[in-house]
Amino acid sequence: MLAYGELLAFDRMAADARLAPDLPRRAVLSEMAGVEIANYRRLASRLAELGADPQDAMRAFVAPLDAYHDQTEPRDYLEALTKAYVGDGIADDFFREVAALLDAPDRELVLDVLHDSRYDDFAADEIRKAIGADPKVANRLSMWARRLVGEGLSQAQQVAAERVALATLIVSGSADEGAVRDLLKRLTNAHTVRMAAVGLNN
Amino acid sequence: MLAYGELLAFDRMAADARLAPDLPRRAVLSEMAGVEIANYRRLASRLAELGADPQDAMRAFVAPLDAYHDQTEPRDYLEALTKAYVGDGIADDFFREVAALLDAPDRELVLDVLHDSRYDDFAADEIRKAIGADPKVANRLSMWARRLVGEGLSQAQQVAAERVALATLIVSGSADEGAVRDLLKRLTNAHTVRMAAVGLNN
Repeated sequence: MLAYGELLAFDRMAADARLAPDLPRRAVLSEMAGVEIANYRRLASRLAELGADPQDAMRAFVAPLDAYHDQTEPRDYLEALTKAYVGDGIADDFFREVAALLDAPDRELVLDVLHDSRYDDFAADEIRKAIGADPKVANRLSMWARRLVGEGLSQAQQVAAERVALATLIVSGSADEGAVRDLLKRLTNAHTVRMAAVGLNN
Repeated sequence: MLAYGELLAFDRMAADARLAPDLPRRAVLSEMAGVEIANYRRLASRLAELGADPQDAMRAFVAPLDAYHDQTEPRDYLEALTKAYVGDGIADDFFREVAALLDAPDRELVLDVLHDSRYDDFAADEIRKAIGADPKVANRLSMWARRLVGEGLSQAQQVAAERVALATLIVSGSADEGAVRDLLKRLTNAHTVRMAAVGLNN
């Protein structure tokens, strides 16, 4: 799921880079995409090492992840940045939670792939600056962020329903049946903090 | 020119990756694009180190390089690969010739950025296999390659006419006035060898 997520994030981020207002910013978005495809390579190599065909392993996640991105195509540069900051933020938190349930070396691989926050800082700065220059932007981007979360949750439920192995891993990795509720609470809290940090309303 | 070439090649190659027939091949094209944006970063950093604003330095090359890519948008996977193999092949040869006229460390930087031939081998293999499976493909791709060369030369002339510094570097870097003719001859010969190597006709 993460491998296809990275391959697809590369594709969408590379396209979103065209929305940037100048060449240096376009280059930063392109470099963000470049990180995703490098991550994809590491995950695909590990899948192959484990004897899995990466294409087969990714197949089940193509439809829901494509659907998420099709439903959340940014119309401008700030929507693209908000998507990277808010959408990828939640996804990364989720994958970190799942990674904690894996054994080494896969746990370390997933955490390592997710750890790069350089570009989050860039996105957060840009969003903050845009809101500073025009406070009305906060409303528009807050609505956009809610849509991102809604679409993300909808596709996540689809994945959980269809991918019993993943759902089982999450449920069985926890001591009691409140664990999934706790996981959702942690994801939601982190999301709220992230939104507030750039001046967006949950 | 090379910096913007890499930034733009990233953008176009990332889009071309969508033409790939399966996820592993799409990933390889995406990784090819990833290499371009990493190269861009190295060149832009060096420009900044030299006191140039990368955006200003690249500006003159935006229109001709955009025009080249707009005129040579691949319609399918094999056209995309042929463009990477033939078009980038000539461009790389040209930049290698220019690099030879630069002083260290810029000469080494340019040569280093150009040296990666992993993906050329991939493209050449795919083209050879496609021609092996259906010999008619050779004709279609040969025509496509000629169009790539024609468009490339047309935009190169534009750049040479407008960018006196670059033209002067090439002319003054050579002992006699036959040098530009010799340069073109070397580029043409290398192109002919490259075409024959995958079964395309010049």
